[in-house]
Amino acid sequence: MSTSRLDVLVVGNALVDVLSLEDDEFVARHGLERGAMTLIDEPRAEAIYAAMGPATEVSGGSAANTAAGLASFGARVGFVGRVRDDQLGAVFAHDIRAIGVEFATAPAAEGPSTGRCLIVVTPDAQRTMNTFLGAASHLGPAEIDPEVAGGSTVTFLEGYLFDQDEAKEAFRHAARIAHDAGNRVALTLSDSFCVERHRADFRDLVERQIDVLFANEQEICSLYEVDDFEQAAKRVRGHCAIAALTRSESGSVVVAADDTHVIAAEPVDRVVDTTGAGDQYAAGFLYGLTHGLDLPTCGRLGALAAAEVISHLGARPEISLADLARSELGGASQRA
Amino acid sequence: MSTSRLDVLVVGNALVDVLSLEDDEFVARHGLERGAMTLIDEPRAEAIYAAMGPATEVSGGSAANTAAGLASFGARVGFVGRVRDDQLGAVFAHDIRAIGVEFATAPAAEGPSTGRCLIVVTPDAQRTMNTFLGAASHLGPAEIDPEVAGGSTVTFLEGYLFDQDEAKEAFRHAARIAHDAGNRVALTLSDSFCVERHRADFRDLVERQIDVLFANEQEICSLYEVDDFEQAAKRVRGHCAIAALTRSESGSVVVAADDTHVIAAEPVDRVVDTTGAGDQYAAGFLYGLTHGLDLPTCGRLGALAAAEVISHLGARPEISLADLARSELGGASQRA
Repeated sequence: MSTSRLDVLVVGNALVDVLSLEDDEFVARHGLERGAMTLIDEPRAEAIYAAMGPATEVSGGSAANTAAGLASFGARVGFVGRVRDDQLGAVFAHDIRAIGVEFATAPAAEGPSTGRCLIVVTPDAQRTMNTFLGAASHLGPAEIDPEVAGGSTVTFLEGYLFDQDEAKEAFRHAARIAHDAGNRVALTLSDSFCVERHRADFRDLVERQIDVLFANEQEICSLYEVDDFEQAAKRVRGHCAIAALTRSESGSVVVAADDTHVIAAEPVDRVVDTTGAGDQYAAGFLYGLTHGLDLPTCGRLGALAAAEVISHLGARPEISLADLARSELGGASQRA
Repeated sequence: MSTSRLDVLVVGNALVDVLSLEDDEFVARHGLERGAMTLIDEPRAEAIYAAMGPATEVSGGSAANTAAGLASFGARVGFVGRVRDDQLGAVFAHDIRAIGVEFATAPAAEGPSTGRCLIVVTPDAQRTMNTFLGAASHLGPAEIDPEVAGGSTVTFLEGYLFDQDEAKEAFRHAARIAHDAGNRVALTLSDSFCVERHRADFRDLVERQIDVLFANEQEICSLYEVDDFEQAAKRVRGHCAIAALTRSESGSVVVAADDTHVIAAEPVDRVVDTTGAGDQYAAGFLYGLTHGLDLPTCGRLGALAAAEVISHLGARPEISLADLARSELGGASQRA
């Protein structure tokens, strides 16, 4: 269906996750915004880190996690994001390349260190994220290679990029190139607080520039300032060709021009850490979309990938999603 | 029994573990020494890392893991080891302090970066370790605080320190101070290849300076160059007051002057990663020993801690070992 070099080009914040298990009291004592992603500066990051228990470092970043999931499904995928030339930057670059993602963005030689997301996981498996963007905030239009962006079936962008002016410019630049080349642009709204920060921009984008939208229930309701999911779903139809709306254990709803598909969540024995559920849903969905699968199958692939990632600590798949898809969906996961 | 400030002072290599799951073919293709700890230089470390899949970074170092385990049991414990003033050094320092270990060794301001242990875990849960010592090799006698070393009930040293001349000096220095103060010195033989490298030194140490010896079956057999465990156990009796000899799923044997105690291994549902089993056995045992518990109970605490750590990825406890000991042993885990 396409002669693009990449199935998906992903643009987002390059971050290393620092995860620790803490009790609920920790979240309260340090005034963290439970379940949300909060931007913090370096001194605050150091204070929270000092209070956290022994931690594990794993590569993260919402869109980068989606890129990793896409590669695990077997997609041809590239990632654009900024690290510094430091040890954590080397960790990020190693991990994303090791899973099969093309990552060519040059690390910054000066400025803040590689960004970290301090993630506190509470006993209910909920994650509370505190992000020091660091070098990730120095992503600009110059980091977007027009040839790569123009040669990708889908360009996937994260809403978090709107938190920094330079990154926002990179976002718009990538979207423009993709559309000019006749390709599709996908967006994740990222986080309901992020939607609050950028509601007008996001609404404008969704109405005019986005072909495929990913959002969870809170995010889509926040976008249209409604309390009711059905209303939000009605509003988004027609604004963009496809909206894939996730509802945690209630599964997902895929809203297209003329159809609505309701997809069940994949059962999970024990939810350990919900970090990355939305990121992996997007990975499965975009894999399906770029491989000619129908929308219900795209949704099922998303549900499968989300279920895998919430069953362990960390936001990237621990097993091959291509194998998982084959064993769960068989022929249906193959290119139509 | 003692008015020491610390129950245990631990001296060892400060390392960050970089773990990935690989198939058996990976071990063969890269010529790794299966199940062993191999010292490698920085270019080799970079080549192996580049070949590894997506990895997880967690603090490690054999003796440092024992220190973490001791703190998790509730012991007063200090660690001496060298990192550099870089990001991975900060990760090591954070994690060991966060679990409750006193760590006061100044990071090196120059020289090689913080040491890394590249750990390849194969489907049989076996770990193959490849260590670039980095800054850890710049541990010398100057890093041993005589007041702390003299004021600890037990000084615990790892055999791996003998791989570097400066660290070996630090080892001898710490042992001398501990003995001069009338305290006990404990040693782990670390690895059977390490025993081969330093057999004469280790035998001399065990006969003249060590009060409590930790070794697994291969290590103690290598020390005395015998094929038979019973023979090795006979040889070690009398050389040091207590030898705690571990035999994987066959449990452990504690050899004292007049008694031999055979302790069963703790059953484990699924062995995920054997990294740190010996380190945590030593933690449980030393916790018991410094809290007035009898030798069979020391061994049981060691078995409990080892079972916890092999049931997940990573070499340090993920739950409170104090809680685990209380629920499994009840009053028997309390100070006599």
